[in-house]
Amino acid sequence: MIIKPWKILSSTCLQGNIRLDRCQLPSGLCIEKPILEYGNWVTVLALTENMEGVLIHQYRHGIQKIILELPGGMVDEGESPSEAARRELLEETGYHSERIVQIGCVSPNPDNHTNLIYSFLALDAKMVAAQRLDATEEINVVLKPLDDLIALAGSGGLLQSMQVSTLFFALVYLKRIA
Amino acid sequence: MIIKPWKILSSTCLQGNIRLDRCQLPSGLCIEKPILEYGNWVTVLALTENMEGVLIHQYRHGIQKIILELPGGMVDEGESPSEAARRELLEETGYHSERIVQIGCVSPNPDNHTNLIYSFLALDAKMVAAQRLDATEEINVVLKPLDDLIALAGSGGLLQSMQVSTLFFALVYLKRIA
Repeated sequence: MIIKPWKILSSTCLQGNIRLDRCQLPSGLCIEKPILEYGNWVTVLALTENMEGVLIHQYRHGIQKIILELPGGMVDEGESPSEAARRELLEETGYHSERIVQIGCVSPNPDNHTNLIYSFLALDAKMVAAQRLDATEEINVVLKPLDDLIALAGSGGLLQSMQVSTLFFALVYLKRIA
Repeated sequence: MIIKPWKILSSTCLQGNIRLDRCQLPSGLCIEKPILEYGNWVTVLALTENMEGVLIHQYRHGIQKIILELPGGMVDEGESPSEAARRELLEETGYHSERIVQIGCVSPNPDNHTNLIYSFLALDAKMVAAQRLDATEEINVVLKPLDDLIALAGSGGLLQSMQVSTLFFALVYLKRIA
């Protein structure tokens, strides 16, 4: 079968960055599809020289829970993903790395998100400053040895799928997958 | 710092399963937050007895591209995640496995999605039937050796973050992480 894209018949703004597309499918069927138009995001696995991951606790309103995450955020206007990764790491945790590399890129959800999220690995990360949080952020920093993080993620302790992806990319980069 | 949850001041339906919460943050700041209320999802890494992954190509309207994915979908009313995983695998690919295990569970995006996605590994998967697709689906099945899939995912060929997470959980389960 030749898979064909859908045809957008009309597109209206529902609210802010959410649009509603009326689409015609290859079968002829017409459906309405809400789409989230975000700019790109970054997420960073920062490891100290002792191979401890620099993690954060924060509240997430979609699931209404305080969870363990990797630092990250939005790529600002005029910024490269790499610059955004350094900035978010510094702002959210006070950590900085001279050895930051892009290790992957995925779609948060290709069904309803327009954007991509770039994964970075920051090696030899050091605390160099205090946190500088946005008005909407409350964040606690916590360090965990990489091996503990792998075990924790494997048993469901890293709930955000994009960050589990980042851990996968880091393990590929670090040649930890046999 | 004690991280506190946000207080929902009001909640209105924007469209279908999208609600708009007006929230008061611990700082006192009030913001509007769109939230996607989905039921839970499943995704399945099915491996044949030759350790080939059963993958699919399908169109995804968020990024308007045809991409390589793992099979999966929504957990129906009254169905367990495991039943949904078996059903989606069979419907989308025609493959069935007697050895299907839940290997992980993540949030698609804890910031704006309410639901969870359960990851399954299906071993010794065999083609037993023709596809039975929904009216909105056009899907091609493709087999790839697991090692090729790991390499492909590591270089960005598996774009959906929830499915990269599933691959990570499978590698933990199969003791492939050193």
